[in-house]
Amino acid sequence: MEDEVVLLDFWPSSFAMRVKIALGEKGIKYECKQEDLFNKSPLLLQMNPIHQKIPVLIHNGKPISESIVILRYIDEVWNHKSPLLPSDPYQRSQSLFWTDYIDKKIYGIGRRIWMGKEDKEEAKEELMQCLKTLEGELGDKPYFGGDSIGLVDVALVPFTTWFYTYERCGGFSIEAGCPKLVAWAQRCKENYQSVSNALPHPHQIYDYMLQLKKRLGLA
Amino acid sequence: MEDEVVLLDFWPSSFAMRVKIALGEKGIKYECKQEDLFNKSPLLLQMNPIHQKIPVLIHNGKPISESIVILRYIDEVWNHKSPLLPSDPYQRSQSLFWTDYIDKKIYGIGRRIWMGKEDKEEAKEELMQCLKTLEGELGDKPYFGGDSIGLVDVALVPFTTWFYTYERCGGFSIEAGCPKLVAWAQRCKENYQSVSNALPHPHQIYDYMLQLKKRLGLA
Repeated sequence: MEDEVVLLDFWPSSFAMRVKIALGEKGIKYECKQEDLFNKSPLLLQMNPIHQKIPVLIHNGKPISESIVILRYIDEVWNHKSPLLPSDPYQRSQSLFWTDYIDKKIYGIGRRIWMGKEDKEEAKEELMQCLKTLEGELGDKPYFGGDSIGLVDVALVPFTTWFYTYERCGGFSIEAGCPKLVAWAQRCKENYQSVSNALPHPHQIYDYMLQLKKRLGLA
Repeated sequence: MEDEVVLLDFWPSSFAMRVKIALGEKGIKYECKQEDLFNKSPLLLQMNPIHQKIPVLIHNGKPISESIVILRYIDEVWNHKSPLLPSDPYQRSQSLFWTDYIDKKIYGIGRRIWMGKEDKEEAKEELMQCLKTLEGELGDKPYFGGDSIGLVDVALVPFTTWFYTYERCGGFSIEAGCPKLVAWAQRCKENYQSVSNALPHPHQIYDYMLQLKKRLGLA
C-alpha cells in the first residue's frame, strides 16, 4: 500500500516549513492543503481539536500535530535516509535541548518585534541575545547537525526567512550582530533543496505580515 | 565503570519530581543535590548556563537540562526496563503530543492561581478545562501509558501534588470536576513507589508556596 501523506499547511508558518523540509529530506510525496487561519477548515478542527493549529501531518488517515512531534515521527517512520537526530543518546539529548530552546524563544520574541508594541526594543535585544547564543552553539561547524543538517537546523532555518521582516520592523541588522548565523542560513538554502523549496522569499513574508497587521487592526 | 549520576534538584519542583520518578522506575542510584533558587550554586550555573534552572541531570560529568529532554535521555540510556514510551511510532508521537500539552499549560496556569493576581478566576477555569481534556485522553485506561505508567503519567503526576495548593488558593475542588483524574493520581501513588517517593506531601507544597509568596512580596 502506498502511504497517503497530507500536510495541513499555512505557507508563512515557520512551523509548517519545518515539516516541509523534513518531508523533502526524506523524499516523501505528500499533498499540501493550505489553511485559512481566519476560517479554519472542518478537516483541521477535526484533526487537531486540541490546539486547532497547523501544521498537522495526516499519515494514512492518522493525524500528528505540533511541528517537533511531527519531525520526530517523520524521522522514526522514514528512517531509511537523512536521519534528523544523531544515534548517540547524549548527542540526541543536546539536539532536543536546542530545539526546545528555539521553540521557547524565537517565535514569541519575533512576534513582539513585528507587532510593534511598546516592548519592541526589549524584544530586539532579546532576539539578538538568543541568536548569539545559537551562533555560539553552531561554533565552527557547517551545520548544527555537524556535516549535514539535523533537527536543530530544520527547527531554526525557517525563522531566518522572517529575519527581513524583523529587521524592517525593528530597524536593525541581524547580520551585523550574527554574521555566522546568517551565513549558516545561506548555506542551508544553497546546499539543501528541501530548505530552499520550503522557504518563501523574505519579501513575501514581509508582505504577508503587513496584511496580517492590517487584518488585526494594528496598522 | 559505575555510572555517576547526580541530580540538581529543588524538592517542590514538579519538573524535578519527574526526573526522580524516572530514575526510580529505572532503578538508578543517584546523588540528589538541593539547589537554593535564590542563591544558585556555581555547579548549576556551570551545568545549565543557558536556562540556569533545575532539574539538571549530570551523567558521568555530562549535563542534560529540561525535564522532558532528561526523561527521554534516561529512557534511551537505561532501556533495560520500564520503557517510558511505546515502541510504535504513532503511539510515541501521541505520548509526545500530550507531554508537550502538559508542559505548555499546567505550570503557567497553576502559577496564576497561587500567585493570586487579577486573572485568577480565568486561570481556574482554564485549569479545569485543561484537566478535563486530559481526563478525556485518559479515558478508561488505568494510566495514560495504558496498563503501566509512561511518559505522560510521569510528566503529569507531579503537578497533582500541587492540586491542594491550587484548590486552597482558588477556593475550588479539582476532584469535583475531574474525579477520574484524581483517582488516576491516587492509583499512580499507590501502585508506584517511584511516584510516592518522589512526591512531597501536598501540605508541604502549600507551606512552601506560602513562604515563597512572602519572599516575593506577594503576601
